[in-house]
Amino acid sequence: MTINAVVFDAYGTLYDIQSVATVTEEAFPGYGDIITQIWRIKQLEYSWLRSLMRRYEDFSVVTRESLAYTLRALGLAYDAVAFDRIMDKYVHLDLYADALTALAALKGRKLAILSNGSSDMLNALVKNSGLDRVLDATISVDQKRVFKPAPEAYTLIEQVLGTRPDEVLFVSSNPWDACGAKSFGLNVAWIERVTPQAMAEACMKSDVVPPLTMFKALRTQMDELGVTPDHRIRALSELPNLIASP
Amino acid sequence: MTINAVVFDAYGTLYDIQSVATVTEEAFPGYGDIITQIWRIKQLEYSWLRSLMRRYEDFSVVTRESLAYTLRALGLAYDAVAFDRIMDKYVHLDLYADALTALAALKGRKLAILSNGSSDMLNALVKNSGLDRVLDATISVDQKRVFKPAPEAYTLIEQVLGTRPDEVLFVSSNPWDACGAKSFGLNVAWIERVTPQAMAEACMKSDVVPPLTMFKALRTQMDELGVTPDHRIRALSELPNLIASP
Repeated sequence: MTINAVVFDAYGTLYDIQSVATVTEEAFPGYGDIITQIWRIKQLEYSWLRSLMRRYEDFSVVTRESLAYTLRALGLAYDAVAFDRIMDKYVHLDLYADALTALAALKGRKLAILSNGSSDMLNALVKNSGLDRVLDATISVDQKRVFKPAPEAYTLIEQVLGTRPDEVLFVSSNPWDACGAKSFGLNVAWIERVTPQAMAEACMKSDVVPPLTMFKALRTQMDELGVTPDHRIRALSELPNLIASP
Repeated sequence: MTINAVVFDAYGTLYDIQSVATVTEEAFPGYGDIITQIWRIKQLEYSWLRSLMRRYEDFSVVTRESLAYTLRALGLAYDAVAFDRIMDKYVHLDLYADALTALAALKGRKLAILSNGSSDMLNALVKNSGLDRVLDATISVDQKRVFKPAPEAYTLIEQVLGTRPDEVLFVSSNPWDACGAKSFGLNVAWIERVTPQAMAEACMKSDVVPPLTMFKALRTQMDELGVTPDHRIRALSELPNLIASP
């Protein structure tokens, strides 16, 4: 297997989406974490539901609507100023600590992002974080008007980079995304940012299961969708070795 | 508007899916509620993800795989006997108290179920609960190999009953299902089984938000998907009046 391109998911893989919590906490004191968690769940749900319903709207719309739902579900009043501040954080997300070094170590291969984010959101995010200097392409599903894990979304890699699926390594922390990419025919590395052991221990710790832990439990285990990613890694720094091996 | 057929979602609309909790509690003492909640979330996710990935498997497979995920996420060992007992509950779900009376009051119109459940699961459930005596059809999405809210699923109503979409009232407690049906072109009544007021109050009650309340908060509010159901009802007993009105 020769890997000629490494393509990354953005939210949760290169960028720490939980870093939104600092801004939501400022806007709604005491609710930062819970807003972030529910928001993310609904954001994903809406991307899948709109894809299935053939009512595609770009990720900025889905993100706004899922936040509106979240505030309503928690009995919090919608606040346009706070909302704009939170949305602004989406184009200033923190990079994971291992992202820049890992990308530098992969130099020589084509490097790209394939994300559900809209072109506008992604281009601003990539520029603000300095990744525009190391990436060959920032690919949004927008032009296909369907979200991952629909196969059409993953076809964009070959379309933009000119690299065949079997020569691409796709990296995602999102189990459903890793499964979708594998199902489509890419080589896939699932980066497990929280270990199941740590998760299970946190869940068992008390009789009242902390709601945040519970929400995270929905996402951090590999999903049961009839496919298995090729690789399971704990840090992006494992990528160079993984590609070098036969 | 003349309504010639009233079509119901099954799980959560006519049948109380939370009644599974009694069996999961027996099998995994102390975890009944939390298993039921996570299981339901993952069950829906998997139905949408498999539809998007074009990896359809029927609802019994999705239900089994989502339970397997749930037990793993909670650090609980999979137990084949307990699993069979839980799955058996799915064909013996409790009817909501208002279901039988409401269906009897609608006599004269075509009455049916359109559900994501597999034909086997649905036929057993309908028979065990006695609804086979009042329903004209029990329609599974199975023959389309895609789950609601994909439009193809809702086309089955006209295909089976011969009733045009604008002459159908579709009833669901699931916001995403009500939106999907409306987006397709049916008349839709959303039955709100828990009021947002009650939900918001429960959420605000303590600093530590109870995880079960949080999970329910994901489902009991109307979704933000760019469509709005025609009617919002609190009980199935409102249906005859709603249809009689011009």
